[in-house]
Amino acid sequence: MENNGNQLEGITIEEAQRREDEGYMRLALQEAQKAFQLGEVPIGALVVRRGEVIAQAHNLRETNQTATAHAELLAIEEACRTAGGWRLTDTTLYVTVEPCPMCAGVILQARIDRVVFGAWDPKAGACGSLLHFLQDPRFNHQVIIEAGVLEEDCRAMMKAFFHRLRSKKSEK
Amino acid sequence: MENNGNQLEGITIEEAQRREDEGYMRLALQEAQKAFQLGEVPIGALVVRRGEVIAQAHNLRETNQTATAHAELLAIEEACRTAGGWRLTDTTLYVTVEPCPMCAGVILQARIDRVVFGAWDPKAGACGSLLHFLQDPRFNHQVIIEAGVLEEDCRAMMKAFFHRLRSKKSEK
Repeated sequence: MENNGNQLEGITIEEAQRREDEGYMRLALQEAQKAFQLGEVPIGALVVRRGEVIAQAHNLRETNQTATAHAELLAIEEACRTAGGWRLTDTTLYVTVEPCPMCAGVILQARIDRVVFGAWDPKAGACGSLLHFLQDPRFNHQVIIEAGVLEEDCRAMMKAFFHRLRSKKSEK
Repeated sequence: MENNGNQLEGITIEEAQRREDEGYMRLALQEAQKAFQLGEVPIGALVVRRGEVIAQAHNLRETNQTATAHAELLAIEEACRTAGGWRLTDTTLYVTVEPCPMCAGVILQARIDRVVFGAWDPKAGACGSLLHFLQDPRFNHQVIIEAGVLEEDCRAMMKAFFHRLRSKKSEK
């Protein structure tokens, strides 16, 4: 059998990374589930620094009635408090859905190294769908992007939420 | 004498709007001055709804050690609290410097009608300099942009700040 990539206890480093990403994405999905139960668009996010979850949050826009209360932004603000500073170097942000322009902007501002997301957002996504400025060399920071981790689960949660929303509306 | 435009007590509506914009921009400059005194990049912002200032803020990134603490974002969060909701329809945001991608994203999220800014930011501006998505029809909201109001004053304050910063660094 041919061996592509480095080995780590019988699996490749790429496979180990994939498993780690999926593990954290499952935690992000748990955060999304909390939003779902509140009647919020079900998006969850985590900030991880060197193997430690330093912040986790879910969308609270309707609950807080604040335009900025997206999962990623709240997680990054919490991460700044935990880390004691606004520069979140050496961190990965996990989020169940592709960030919007605001959240992609926060990721840039906080100097996050890597963003891992689940489902694409073709209507408002800013990490490849409508805009793609996290790797734009004209800005003073660039971010590694990993898309589509547990994509089906993340998309299924969004779909279930909007299906329920439409059912409720049609009942009225 | 030829009369171009509508008349309002002897001045055109465009001229009345320009004077009003300059008046609010002066208040935004006062906010920027507060940031300057704190050693923060001197940017100030206001949210105005039907002739009333409903929020004002200045950059507090270093003071708060939070990546999101830009003047515009803080002003919009305060405006959501004042207005009691995340939809800031019928509002104008005044800011002394062209918003970055994060703040342009917040403007979109909050459904702000109009943005008036002073100085351009060729290195990170997202309202015409590096990005220009506030009028992108693919998003679910578009924003009227008025650039260059009290541009010289706004730019002079930034210039003075960075000049002082460089002087301090060279003293060390």
